[in-house]
Amino acid sequence: MNPTLPALMTGEAIGIDIGGTKINGGTIRVSDQAALQANLGTVYDLQNLATPTKTEPFLEALTTIIANLKNTSKPPIQCVGISTAGMVDPNRGMILGSTGNLPAVIGPFNLKATLEERTGLKVHVENDANAAAYGEYRAGAAQGYRNVLMITLGTGVGGGVVVEGKLVQGAHFSGGEVGHIAIGHDKKRQCTCGRWDCWEAYASGTGLALTTREMLKSQAHRPEVKALLKDDTIEEIGTHALIAAVGEKNPFAIEIMDLWHEHIAVGLGSIMNVLDPEMVVIGGGMAQFVDFEKLKKALSQRVMVPIESVHLEPAVLGNHAGMIGAAFLALEHLN
Amino acid sequence: MNPTLPALMTGEAIGIDIGGTKINGGTIRVSDQAALQANLGTVYDLQNLATPTKTEPFLEALTTIIANLKNTSKPPIQCVGISTAGMVDPNRGMILGSTGNLPAVIGPFNLKATLEERTGLKVHVENDANAAAYGEYRAGAAQGYRNVLMITLGTGVGGGVVVEGKLVQGAHFSGGEVGHIAIGHDKKRQCTCGRWDCWEAYASGTGLALTTREMLKSQAHRPEVKALLKDDTIEEIGTHALIAAVGEKNPFAIEIMDLWHEHIAVGLGSIMNVLDPEMVVIGGGMAQFVDFEKLKKALSQRVMVPIESVHLEPAVLGNHAGMIGAAFLALEHLN
Repeated sequence: MNPTLPALMTGEAIGIDIGGTKINGGTIRVSDQAALQANLGTVYDLQNLATPTKTEPFLEALTTIIANLKNTSKPPIQCVGISTAGMVDPNRGMILGSTGNLPAVIGPFNLKATLEERTGLKVHVENDANAAAYGEYRAGAAQGYRNVLMITLGTGVGGGVVVEGKLVQGAHFSGGEVGHIAIGHDKKRQCTCGRWDCWEAYASGTGLALTTREMLKSQAHRPEVKALLKDDTIEEIGTHALIAAVGEKNPFAIEIMDLWHEHIAVGLGSIMNVLDPEMVVIGGGMAQFVDFEKLKKALSQRVMVPIESVHLEPAVLGNHAGMIGAAFLALEHLN
Repeated sequence: MNPTLPALMTGEAIGIDIGGTKINGGTIRVSDQAALQANLGTVYDLQNLATPTKTEPFLEALTTIIANLKNTSKPPIQCVGISTAGMVDPNRGMILGSTGNLPAVIGPFNLKATLEERTGLKVHVENDANAAAYGEYRAGAAQGYRNVLMITLGTGVGGGVVVEGKLVQGAHFSGGEVGHIAIGHDKKRQCTCGRWDCWEAYASGTGLALTTREMLKSQAHRPEVKALLKDDTIEEIGTHALIAAVGEKNPFAIEIMDLWHEHIAVGLGSIMNVLDPEMVVIGGGMAQFVDFEKLKKALSQRVMVPIESVHLEPAVLGNHAGMIGAAFLALEHLN
């Protein structure tokens, strides 16, 4: 434990995670460091509602969850932390814009002011990737470290950065867009964002599926291909079939997974060279398929500092990271 | 001017820049913001000595420069800021290791304690790339901004990062190693550091020369090649000949320079996506050849935020950036 860690803000806060399909909420209790470590990532009174697509029902859903949690909690609730999709200005509590998966709030919308008026509680709003990184930093895998990089490997690649205990928001609240760093300069693969050679286009689940198809096409003569494909065509194959084949020790499938680890290491190594974190946390749906020893070996070819001096750990808070991080941020912003 | 900028520490400080061949020193005066802007980057009583290769003569050279500057200055000198090559722990004032261009201090060496004892002045030590970035942030091109990325394009590529007004040191004092992010994943070009596809291997002057030779070899049939080469062979050609040919409007040379701007943009865009700075400063010997409009256009294909929302400026402090930055850091660490 680093002695320069910030003091814990003790208290009881509601954490809300606004996703494209569901709004999840729960209560986070912070009494002291010992209790926190004992209850690592515990969220009480979990509940959820489908995310409405219109503004007023959306606000009503949020208000309902907050009211329910406030009424259920015995110790008084001090504040509400919101983790949400979209670009967020946490200083003003504004959702600046959403990427289309949050149709209820288009354009700049002051979620903080609106919810504070409706609930009578102090509200803090943060982007979901940043909130998840902060959750892992405060109550998860990165607890006790001051310089933390979290990446999430899923359908896409996201992330959040903590430098000396503070989230890197960026000048336009766009810091930590790690998925869209480039790991190539020759326009080989276009990302779903329209840019070329983004890390996400290789390191995400979608990227791994693409790599699998490319490899199968270019080496279609190999004897292991049939066992890998089973009943799929090359165009149909996805990560599930690949991972099943890895389980069956298919050498071609293992080669493809090795290449995926290389792809993860190229982008991750770049970010590590810029930020020099002491702890890297890997979350997201694809994290379970990461072989951490293999990744460390690949990273050792990329990173300036000795790789043994960096901790590399899987995320531990799962889908609760965002609401936990938002709740901590809300408690810390009370003072 | 951002109202949340830290208050200036007024005073008089010595700034020293330790390079592989020379130690440069001078005095920096900070009275108030208005005076600072009027004297943008002014260093008084500049002097230098060759950098000794043995420890004791090295320390004597430093002590001599500091004593001279202290005696010359009419207002009392409050502290000394040192900008040095090598890996530095600025909290303890230690040079942790040098890259071979500073043979006088091999291994961990407490420069701060040694110089404080010999000079009776408070000393702050910082890595030269970080000190230069801090200089541009405090008294140069990035004055007034809180989130600043500085890159230096020279024989190599270096940099420094300021987030919310603070230098990003990194957990192992290795933050800001921007030259060694990867802009490729297929091992096409090896960097002088031994790693593959580092940004430095493309964006530095050395990288540009390599790109020039590669382009000339692969397109040796083009009619513009003769005018570009003049009396050089392909193996001999360097950036001087290329830039001369660009001046003569040689279309092939212009294409190569365009590609160099693409190479700069790929790496710079990646770092900008992670940090989201509001100001990017470009320094180093190769900066004079950067066409900022061309670079912005290339960056607009890479960066998540609208490129018009980011300032992109040439460095203004030149070789004095390091000593100015170190002097500011020293003054700020007095309190």
